[in-house]
Amino acid sequence: MTHKRIRIGMVGGGDGAFIGAVHRIATRIDDGFELVAGALSSDPDRALASSRRLGIQEARSYTSFYAMAEQEKRREDGIQAVIIVTPNHMHYPVAKAFLEHGIHVICDKPVTKDLKEALELKALVEKSGAFFALTHNYTGYPLVRHAKHLVDNNTLGKLRVIQVEYAQDWLTERAESTENKQAQWRTDPEKSGMAGCLGDIGTHAFNLACFISGQKVQQVSADLTAFVSGRRLDDNVHTMLRFDGGAKGMLWSSQVAPGNENGLKIRLYGEKAGIEWCQESPNELWLSIFGQPTQKITRAGHGAGEEANRLSRVPAGHPEGYLEGFANLYVDIAAAIHAIESGASVDSVQGFIPSIDDGVEGMRFITAVLASSTNNSAWQPLDDMESNGQSARGKAND
Amino acid sequence: MTHKRIRIGMVGGGDGAFIGAVHRIATRIDDGFELVAGALSSDPDRALASSRRLGIQEARSYTSFYAMAEQEKRREDGIQAVIIVTPNHMHYPVAKAFLEHGIHVICDKPVTKDLKEALELKALVEKSGAFFALTHNYTGYPLVRHAKHLVDNNTLGKLRVIQVEYAQDWLTERAESTENKQAQWRTDPEKSGMAGCLGDIGTHAFNLACFISGQKVQQVSADLTAFVSGRRLDDNVHTMLRFDGGAKGMLWSSQVAPGNENGLKIRLYGEKAGIEWCQESPNELWLSIFGQPTQKITRAGHGAGEEANRLSRVPAGHPEGYLEGFANLYVDIAAAIHAIESGASVDSVQGFIPSIDDGVEGMRFITAVLASSTNNSAWQPLDDMESNGQSARGKAND
Amino acid sequence: MTHKRIRIGMVGGGDGAFIGAVHRIATRIDDGFELVAGALSSDPDRALASSRRLGIQEARSYTSFYAMAEQEKRREDGIQAVIIVTPNHMHYPVAKAFLEHGIHVICDKPVTKDLKEALELKALVEKSGAFFALTHNYTGYPLVRHAKHLVDNNTLGKLRVIQVEYAQDWLTERAESTENKQAQWRTDPEKSGMAGCLGDIGTHAFNLACFISGQKVQQVSADLTAFVSGRRLDDNVHTMLRFDGGAKGMLWSSQVAPGNENGLKIRLYGEKAGIEWCQESPNELWLSIFGQPTQKITRAGHGAGEEANRLSRVPAGHPEGYLEGFANLYVDIAAAIHAIESGASVDSVQGFIPSIDDGVEGMRFITAVLASSTNNSAWQPLDDMESNGQSARGKAND
Amino acid sequence: MTHKRIRIGMVGGGDGAFIGAVHRIATRIDDGFELVAGALSSDPDRALASSRRLGIQEARSYTSFYAMAEQEKRREDGIQAVIIVTPNHMHYPVAKAFLEHGIHVICDKPVTKDLKEALELKALVEKSGAFFALTHNYTGYPLVRHAKHLVDNNTLGKLRVIQVEYAQDWLTERAESTENKQAQWRTDPEKSGMAGCLGDIGTHAFNLACFISGQKVQQVSADLTAFVSGRRLDDNVHTMLRFDGGAKGMLWSSQVAPGNENGLKIRLYGEKAGIEWCQESPNELWLSIFGQPTQKITRAGHGAGEEANRLSRVPAGHPEGYLEGFANLYVDIAAAIHAIESGASVDSVQGFIPSIDDGVEGMRFITAVLASSTNNSAWQPLDDMESNGQSARGKAND
Repeated sequence: MTHKRIRIGMVGGGDGAFIGAVHRIATRIDDGFELVAGALSSDPDRALASSRRLGIQEARSYTSFYAMAEQEKRREDGIQAVIIVTPNHMHYPVAKAFLEHGIHVICDKPVTKDLKEALELKALVEKSGAFFALTHNYTGYPLVRHAKHLVDNNTLGKLRVIQVEYAQDWLTERAESTENKQAQWRTDPEKSGMAGCLGDIGTHAFNLACFISGQKVQQVSADLTAFVSGRRLDDNVHTMLRFDGGAKGMLWSSQVAPGNENGLKIRLYGEKAGIEWCQESPNELWLSIFGQPTQKITRAGHGAGEEANRLSRVPAGHPEGYLEGFANLYVDIAAAIHAIESGASVDSVQGFIPSIDDGVEGMRFITAVLASSTNNSAWQPLDDMESNGQSARGKAND
Repeated sequence: MTHKRIRIGMVGGGDGAFIGAVHRIATRIDDGFELVAGALSSDPDRALASSRRLGIQEARSYTSFYAMAEQEKRREDGIQAVIIVTPNHMHYPVAKAFLEHGIHVICDKPVTKDLKEALELKALVEKSGAFFALTHNYTGYPLVRHAKHLVDNNTLGKLRVIQVEYAQDWLTERAESTENKQAQWRTDPEKSGMAGCLGDIGTHAFNLACFISGQKVQQVSADLTAFVSGRRLDDNVHTMLRFDGGAKGMLWSSQVAPGNENGLKIRLYGEKAGIEWCQESPNELWLSIFGQPTQKITRAGHGAGEEANRLSRVPAGHPEGYLEGFANLYVDIAAAIHAIESGASVDSVQGFIPSIDDGVEGMRFITAVLASSTNNSAWQPLDDMESNGQSARGKAND
Repeated sequence: MTHKRIRIGMVGGGDGAFIGAVHRIATRIDDGFELVAGALSSDPDRALASSRRLGIQEARSYTSFYAMAEQEKRREDGIQAVIIVTPNHMHYPVAKAFLEHGIHVICDKPVTKDLKEALELKALVEKSGAFFALTHNYTGYPLVRHAKHLVDNNTLGKLRVIQVEYAQDWLTERAESTENKQAQWRTDPEKSGMAGCLGDIGTHAFNLACFISGQKVQQVSADLTAFVSGRRLDDNVHTMLRFDGGAKGMLWSSQVAPGNENGLKIRLYGEKAGIEWCQESPNELWLSIFGQPTQKITRAGHGAGEEANRLSRVPAGHPEGYLEGFANLYVDIAAAIHAIESGASVDSVQGFIPSIDDGVEGMRFITAVLASSTNNSAWQPLDDMESNGQSARGKAND
Repeated sequence: MTHKRIRIGMVGGGDGAFIGAVHRIATRIDDGFELVAGALSSDPDRALASSRRLGIQEARSYTSFYAMAEQEKRREDGIQAVIIVTPNHMHYPVAKAFLEHGIHVICDKPVTKDLKEALELKALVEKSGAFFALTHNYTGYPLVRHAKHLVDNNTLGKLRVIQVEYAQDWLTERAESTENKQAQWRTDPEKSGMAGCLGDIGTHAFNLACFISGQKVQQVSADLTAFVSGRRLDDNVHTMLRFDGGAKGMLWSSQVAPGNENGLKIRLYGEKAGIEWCQESPNELWLSIFGQPTQKITRAGHGAGEEANRLSRVPAGHPEGYLEGFANLYVDIAAAIHAIESGASVDSVQGFIPSIDDGVEGMRFITAVLASSTNNSAWQPLDDMESNGQSARGKAND
C-alpha cells in the first residue's frame, strides 16, 4: 500500500500554547497526517512566525479562520480536516466555519462553551456530512480500550460501582494573577465557559467513565467549590453519579490537590470482577476477578487483548505514554477519514472515537452539575438540561 | 519502675470470633494487660472452653456479663477494665453493666446500635466517672498520628479537601446465605443496627477523617445501596461531606468492590500541602508540599515525628501493621488507666484515644447518612439527628 | 485444650538493647511463652532494673548466665528454653552452658563468631538432645513460606536464577564513632566476628535464598568493601553464587546505601515461573507464570496457600509485619518444644525452623565469602571451609 | 526560525523489523528529520514495498547500501545522515560505506560484532570527520539526564555502589526454534556476535551505569550462562564491576526471568545520597539524601532540573515513555548535525550523545566479560582487551 497522508490545518496552537503542540506530535507519531495550513494565532505576526517554525507555507498561514476555511476549500490540495485547539469559547464558531465548507473537524474538549452551542453544533455536523471527532484523548490509551473490552465481554458482570477522579495541583495558588496564560483563560468564564475545573478535567473523567462502562449518567448530585480566594470558576468538583445501567458512582476532580499532577484514575466494580487504571501508570491495568489473586495486565503483555495490541507500537515493558495515547486517537481518526473519503464504512473504529454526541453529553453533564450544585446538590437528571439548565454558574454555592 | 499489668476481662470474643482475638493480641504486644476474666460466649460450654484455651481460671469464666460485672467488682484482684467485643446490639447493655460497677470500659465500634443508645451511654459514662475508650484502632497507626500532627502544626495550611474511602470485597456475593458467621451478623439489622457497610467500615473512615483533620462533619449528602440481591443492609456508601472548618470531602465505603481487601485510604489537601495514607501500606505517609517533590515519610524514618516514634517498636523498614496499630491504642489506654487510678491527669494521651464523644459523633454520622439517603441525598446536618433522624433504614432508597 | 505456656529465660536484651525486646514481643503475640528468668546484662544494676521492668522475679534475675543455667535447671518450675540475644561473640559460650544442662536454646544469628565454634556447637547440640533454633526470622513471614511452597510444588519449574539483596543505609556515615551502641558492636571484630555487614544482614539474605529455594550454595565469588573510612569490617558485600541444584545467583548486602531501610528482597526464576518478595511489603508475593499476567498474591488472600494461612492472624488487607513474622517462628518453636517434651515427633514444623545446620551453613558462607574476597574473588567452595578458610578477614581487599 | 528538517536514509528496518520502526517514530516526534531514502531490506521486493509504505520515492529505494551511499552522496538533495538498524554483524560494513562518503552515521547498538571491528570503525569515524552517534536510547530519558546531573553536581557525593540490571523474560523458552525472527538472529552467533543477552541488553545496562556515574568500568568478574537447552549464546549474565572512580557494582541481565518485560533499573549510592530509576516507570526518579525522607522527583515536576525540562514535551503527570526517550536522543543528534553543518561547536549536546568511544567501550566490556566468564570469573581489566580477549565465546562455561 502506498503511503498517503491526510492533509490537515490547525486553528489555534501558536507559539506558547500547550495542547496544539500535543496534537501536532500525535499526528506525526504514526505519520498519518501532514500539517499544511494554519490560523495559529489571532495576532498576525505570531501566526506567521509559528507557521514558519512548523514548516507551513506562508500562503497557507492565515490570520482568519474564515479565510482559511474558504480558501483551503478552493484548493485542489486543500486540507481534508482541521484541528481546533483554541480556548473553549472559540470551538463553536471555528467548527461551524469548517463544517459549512464540508471540511472534517477534529476538536478539543469541552466541545463548546455551553449546551445550547453543543446542540447547534450537532445539527451542523449532521447537516454537513463531514466527520467530527472530539479529542477526549484518554480513550486512546491501549489499556483503556482493554478495560472497555473487559466490560463489554462481561468479565466484570453487571456493573455496580464506578469511582473516577482527576486531580491536579497546579491551581493551588492563585496562578491566574501571575503571567500564567493557561491559568488565565482556564479560570475566565468568558473563555472557558461556565465551568472551571469541571470543564477542564472533570469532563475527561466523566467521558472516561462513560466510555469504559458503556453506560450513560442519568443523574448527578454535585457540590462545586472555588477554594482559592477571588477565583471566578470552580476549582474542586464533588459529584455523585447514577448511571442508566444501574451503576452508582462518584466523580472527584480538583486543581487544588497538592501532590497530584495528572491523577486521572478509574475503578469499576461489577458482580464478578473489578478493574483499576491510572493515567500516570497507563501501561498497567489491574484486574481482580472475585475469588482470584489480582492480575497485573500490561500493555502488549500477556492478557492484554487484541485492541490494546493493535494500538501498541513497542513491546510490553517499554512504556508508551500520553502522546502515544493521543496518537492512537489519531490512528482511528485517520482510518475513519480514509474510509469516509473512499466511501467505505467507518464502523470498525468509530465506536472508539469520541463524537459530537459525546460532546453534547459532556455539556449536559456540565450543565447538570452546575444546576445541582446551585440547587444545594439536588439530584439533577441530565436529559432535563436542554430546557432549563442554562443559567447556572460554575461558582461555589456559598 | 516495676512492671504492673492492668487486669482485664472480656465480653464476647469466644472461639471463632474475629475481633476478640485481635484485642487480646493487641493487649499482649506491649505486656500492659493481663486477661483474667471473661464472659466469652452466651453458650456456657463454648464460654468455658474458650476460657480454658486462654488460661482464664474456671472461677472467672462467666456465662453472664451481669454476673461478671458484679463478682469481679467484689474481688480484691477483680478486673480493672472490660473489653467489649460482642456484636453491636450488645455494646450498650454490656457497657452499662460494667460502668454501673465503676469498671472501665473498652468498647468496639460502632459504639451502640443507634444514636439514642449512644447518648444514654454518654450520660452513663459521665455519671460513672469510669474511663471509656472506643477502639477506632486505625487512629493508633504511628503515621496516622503523624498525619494529625502535620495538620495540627499547620504544615498543610487551612484544609480544603478530604477524600476518604474504605473498600472491601468480601460481601461481593451473598455470603450471609452461607455458613459465614461474620457475614450473617454484619448484614442483620437486629445485630448490626440500622447500618451495614456504613456502620461496619464507613464509621472507621469517618472517624479517621475527623481524627486527622481535627474538624467535625457538619452535613452529609448520601446515597446508600444494597447491591447484592436480598441483602438487608447497605453494602455500598457514597457520601459527600461538609466539615465545620470549611473543608469539603467525599467518603466512599463498599463491601462489594472486588480486589479491595481493606482499602482504607485518606487524602487531605490544604492551602500549602497534601498528604496521603493507606492502611494497606501503613508504614508510608506521602507528604506533598506545594512546589516541592513529594516526600515518602516512613514510620520511624527520617521526617517521622516524635509521636510516630513513640509508638514504634522496631526500626524503619521493618513493617509494623494492623496489630501493632491496635496495640498502640492499648498503650495509650494503659497510660490513661494508670493515670486515673493514681489520680493523675490523662491529658497527655487522652486526645488520641477515641472517646464516648467520638462514639456519639459516629452514631450521628450514621443517622444523618441514613436520613439523607432516604431523603434522596438532601444535605443533612449531623446536629439535627438527636431529635428526628431515628427512623431511617440502611437500605438502598430504590 | 488447656493453655500451657512454655517457661523461658533470656540472656542479653537488657534496657537499651534492640533485638531482645523484639524476641519478647514475638513470644507474647500468640501467648505461647512466659518469661520467668533472665541474665539480661553483665552489669548487675542494669540486669536487675531490666528484670523488674519486665516482671521477672528478683530471685530469677541473674548476673551470670552460668548461674542461671545451673539454678534454673534445679528448679521444678525452671525454664524450659533460653533465648540468646547477646552480641555474636557470646552466642557460643552461652549456648554451651544451657545445652550442657539440657535446656533448649533459641539463638539469634549469626550462630557463632566463626565456623569452628559453629561446628563445635553442632556437636554439643547433638550430644545434648536439646532443641536448638536459630532465629532467621524472615523465614517466618507467611508469604515466604508460600514462596517456598511454590518452589517445592514445582510451580516455578527447575530454578535458574536467584537474586537476593539486603540493603540498609544506617552505616552510611561513621556511626560507630558516635554514641550509637548498635553501630559500635556491629563494626567491632571482637564482638561481631570476622564479618560486618556480611554477618549482620548478608547471612539473612543467604539463609532466605536457601530456605525458599531448597538449594545449597556450592560456591561463592565475592568482593567485600569497607567504604567508610576507618571502618574495621565490611559494609558492602557483592557476591555471585552457584547453587547445588544448578541455579546461579547474586547476593548484594550493604549498610551504606542511602534510602534503603531494611531492603531485603528476593527474586527466584525457574523454567516455568518467577516470584518476587520484599520484606518491606511482606503481605504481597508476586507470581509470574510465563505466558500469563503477573499475579499479586496477598497474605491470607485468594491464592495464598495453607501454610501462609496457618500463620495469619488477621484477614488479608490488614497488614502483618516484622513482629508477626518473628512470632511465627516462635509458633513453630513452641510446637516443636511441646512435641519434644511430650515425646512426639516434631517433623511437621521442624522443616521450617532454622536449625544448627543452618547456622553452620551460614558460617561456611561467611568464611567462604571472606576467603574469596581475600583471594581476589576466586570461586570458593563452601564445603572446603572447615579445613582452610579460618583466617580471612572481613575487610576490603584493597 | 524557519523549519529545516535533516534528510535521512535508513539501512535495515523493512517490514517486520522492530527497531527500525522505533527509530522512524523517534525521528518524527519532534519533526527534525525527513526520511527520503532507504535500503530497507536485502530482499528487493520487500525493500520496495517497505519504501512505498513509508513514502520513500522509488528512485531512492535501494537494494544495496553501497549503491545508496554512493548515489545519495551525488545528489544535491542527498541524505545528510544514515540510520543503521540491521542485525549487529552488518553495522560495521554499512557504517564504513557511509562514512567513506562523508555521510553522518546513526547506528544501533552494540556498535559492531566484536572489539576489533569497533576499533577499526573508530579510526574510520575519526578519519571521515563525519558525525557518529550510537543509539543507547535509555540515555535520552529526561530523568536519566537528571540522574547524571545529580551525580555531576555532587548531590550524591563520592560514589560507592552502583547496582544495575536489565531483566526480560521473552527467551524463557526456546523461542529461536519457533518462527520468532527476533529470537532467531539474537541467539545466532553469526548475526549477533559473541554475546547473546550480554550484547543485546547487558550493554545497555553497562552504558547506562557509565553514562550516569561518569565513571569507567576498570575490571569485571563475570559468570555467563545459557540456561535454555540448545541455546548457542548466553541468556543470563552475572557480573561484578569495579569502576575507575572507586565505586563497585553489580550488573545482572537476563532474558529468562519470568515476569520481567524490560526491567532496566539502576541504583547509585554515594557518600551523601542515593538515587533509583526504573525504565518501566521512567517519569519517576527517587532521591534519598541521607538523613532526609526519600523524594519522588517527577519528569517536569518540582525538583526536576533544567536538562529534564528541556527534554519534556508535556507536563508532569502526563507520562512520556520509551519513544519520547528515544526521540530525545534524536533531538540532540539533530542539534549536533545542524551545528556541524553550519560549522558551529557541538559541545553543548555532544556530552549526552553516545559516541563511537562509547561503542568501543561497550565492546571492551563484552570482550572482558566473555573472557572473565571463560576464565572462571577471574577479574578482567577492560583495557587489556585489545590484545588478547578476542577469542572468547558467549556460551556458559559449564
